[in-house]
Amino acid sequence: MRAPVTSAQQLAAFAAGLSDAGLPADVSEQALLHLLETLGCGLAALALGEVTFVLSAAIEAGGTGPATAIGSRDGLPAAGAALVNGTLFHALDFDDTHPDSVVHVSAAVVAAALAAGEAAGSSGAGLVRALVIGNETSARIGMAAGGRFHARGFHPTGVCGVFGATAAAASLRGLDEERFTHALGIAGSMAGGLFEFLADGTKTKPLHPGWAAHAALMAVGLAAHGATGPATVLEGSRGFFAAYLHGEDHDLEAQLADLGARWETPQMAFKPYPACHYIHAPLDALASLMRDHGLGPQDVEGIVALSDETGVGLVLHPLADKLRPRTAYDAKFSLPYCLGAMLVHGRVNVGSFTAEAIADPAVLELAARVTYEQKDYAAAPDAFPGGVRVTTRDGRTLEAELRHQRGGAQNPMAAAEIIAKFEAGAELALPGERVAELRDAVRGLDNGPDLRALAVLRGAGPRS
Amino acid sequence: MRAPVTSAQQLAAFAAGLSDAGLPADVSEQALLHLLETLGCGLAALALGEVTFVLSAAIEAGGTGPATAIGSRDGLPAAGAALVNGTLFHALDFDDTHPDSVVHVSAAVVAAALAAGEAAGSSGAGLVRALVIGNETSARIGMAAGGRFHARGFHPTGVCGVFGATAAAASLRGLDEERFTHALGIAGSMAGGLFEFLADGTKTKPLHPGWAAHAALMAVGLAAHGATGPATVLEGSRGFFAAYLHGEDHDLEAQLADLGARWETPQMAFKPYPACHYIHAPLDALASLMRDHGLGPQDVEGIVALSDETGVGLVLHPLADKLRPRTAYDAKFSLPYCLGAMLVHGRVNVGSFTAEAIADPAVLELAARVTYEQKDYAAAPDAFPGGVRVTTRDGRTLEAELRHQRGGAQNPMAAAEIIAKFEAGAELALPGERVAELRDAVRGLDNGPDLRALAVLRGAGPRS
Repeated sequence: MRAPVTSAQQLAAFAAGLSDAGLPADVSEQALLHLLETLGCGLAALALGEVTFVLSAAIEAGGTGPATAIGSRDGLPAAGAALVNGTLFHALDFDDTHPDSVVHVSAAVVAAALAAGEAAGSSGAGLVRALVIGNETSARIGMAAGGRFHARGFHPTGVCGVFGATAAAASLRGLDEERFTHALGIAGSMAGGLFEFLADGTKTKPLHPGWAAHAALMAVGLAAHGATGPATVLEGSRGFFAAYLHGEDHDLEAQLADLGARWETPQMAFKPYPACHYIHAPLDALASLMRDHGLGPQDVEGIVALSDETGVGLVLHPLADKLRPRTAYDAKFSLPYCLGAMLVHGRVNVGSFTAEAIADPAVLELAARVTYEQKDYAAAPDAFPGGVRVTTRDGRTLEAELRHQRGGAQNPMAAAEIIAKFEAGAELALPGERVAELRDAVRGLDNGPDLRALAVLRGAGPRS
Repeated sequence: MRAPVTSAQQLAAFAAGLSDAGLPADVSEQALLHLLETLGCGLAALALGEVTFVLSAAIEAGGTGPATAIGSRDGLPAAGAALVNGTLFHALDFDDTHPDSVVHVSAAVVAAALAAGEAAGSSGAGLVRALVIGNETSARIGMAAGGRFHARGFHPTGVCGVFGATAAAASLRGLDEERFTHALGIAGSMAGGLFEFLADGTKTKPLHPGWAAHAALMAVGLAAHGATGPATVLEGSRGFFAAYLHGEDHDLEAQLADLGARWETPQMAFKPYPACHYIHAPLDALASLMRDHGLGPQDVEGIVALSDETGVGLVLHPLADKLRPRTAYDAKFSLPYCLGAMLVHGRVNVGSFTAEAIADPAVLELAARVTYEQKDYAAAPDAFPGGVRVTTRDGRTLEAELRHQRGGAQNPMAAAEIIAKFEAGAELALPGERVAELRDAVRGLDNGPDLRALAVLRGAGPRS
């Protein structure tokens, strides 16, 4: 192969050049923690009965195969398992986000890598390498757009995620650089994911990383069998950025220039709350006021939520819709609801998003006291910043703000906290000893000879 | 269900209301002729060894099932067969186009309908109804954009075709109006297809209708199992048109207002040449000069090709690339090459696009004499208009122009010509008696109790 000249060729060369030894230890460690968090999200989603349609549709779609779909005793064809798992991982909106790209990176990358890795009989180290390749690809492509996909109606988790998922799957399949490039070229014609679900609370969002992972397995399979795709798929005049971000610039070249030197995997933010990332900073800000000032629900006269333009568009506007979420899923995009739940219950967790919880009159009464103020935070280094200004019945004004949501690199969650989050999710779907077995297997995966320990996921189901 | 208020709901209501008796006879007849032409294209593509990767990748992807993939003895899962057939149908660029939408309608719609119809045990009449529902959906969504997807880098055959394919499959699955709407909502997050393959002659284009049909089967399966998608998927502020045609208007409302009164299926153009539609009018114009003036290759000093902006972008610009096509597929988008081939051989057919043919020095010498002039044809009622102005070595200037390419409603091919085209393609892949059997079965499909006659396609293969 000639020296890489296009972006897809650069990504292929990066993947080919990434020996196990070339992976910095902290990058591997972070990739494994993200894998663990992601599996916990999928298991919790299964246990809570989220997106049950995806497993039944994938089983009906046909066939058995080598790949583990969470909750299915039988293995599925790799592309089917990827669809199921990617959808489950994102179903609770509790999975990670890479802040500067606003891509939920792991959902698609982990789903594609697990399926491709099982199909290929990969080692643990091969899986970890593929996860990093996928993470770096999705994050950088998303960063090149500077978060502007949302404004177009596109969900970057889908439209950027398909490239990372494809890169991960191509690595595990062992495609050479030329076919790796073709796989990315094909994947560009499979990029999809619209934000229109916000209009009526329907449930396409979790399908986006599932579909990206499914497309990745198909693109890689096609390329392995000789299909070709354009090497200029990303930067070309009829390529991904030109089409999906028409009329806007991107800096993909800069993003790819330091592949292998700068690492974005450690920048991916773990998620303390199962709601949209733009909810987190205001929610933690409110929690800090409750902790520091003994603020309780009876004290609140009004709350002004502080967020940037994108945050306002996602979790505050139109305010009338946000004050009374219609579905549990809707509530994950309602900052007023989440602030009310935090005030009433002192916590926001998966239990805050049941049909009963979102109808709680005490919470809705407080949600109705929320208004908002749009702020111009810096695009970087701030990461999902936000805050609250609370006026109390006794006339005080209390304000708090976080410039970096908790869970990100600048305000990290401890490894123990991430492991505990995994366990809390996994225990909803697996017996305790299986949870521990899976946790230990994943934590040691970079030394694991194979991926057999993941078969534990086949026994998952709601625990009564 | 409430009265339809969104575009997707209107399409669902149209499909639900379309009883067999409600289909005008000429619409049914046209749908069957398009089915026949499409099958012939797929069989010829198989015989010529086009896109062989898609069947091997689909078989490897796993499973057997109820659906016929052309060239596979075993049935495949419906979504896999849809991918294979949709890709084969478009592989020679010899399938139909709806002019006002510039969508290759049948490739995706037929692929999705055959797979869904076989899976559902449909009658022939049910299949015909679904084809019309799919055709009307793809054509109208494409018309609403007024052909502007190309300028964005999107291939409307993929991005619009997924909706028609989904509508066809949803009809055959018998989804009620609510689930039909959800299926369209989900399909919107699966719309893909970039034109970037033009940059290097790679082969993603035929995958686009295959992928659209594959996505359609998955979207319908998901909706049947309870997945939901936004009812405003088409016109919403974060919906399909807002995202894929950002900043441009569309007139979808007008296009859907007369569903069931105006029919677009009879407007779909059959294709006399296996090359891009923008090639046809100039090529027939040249053929008329050859016929009327005895023009031959030795007479030609230069040729100025006449085409509109879209046509120039697809088949004439950048001219240096077009004069020497790098691949057979490239040659289908090179008007200079096709004009040269017509001059030298007096015809352009599937044999004009082999590796040997595109290297013919006599043809390339004439291709090098082609330049172009961009013309402002009316957007309608012209349909893929174009022409040539030839200067001869003895000093004459001969000019001819077609305002409507042959094969369209305004310049139709006779049914016998379409049947002959089917037979010529099918005979490359099937024995003569099987070709006749398939032809007669398809021609009588609106009275057929089932789709079993299509199993003939499983025995297809290259005829030595």
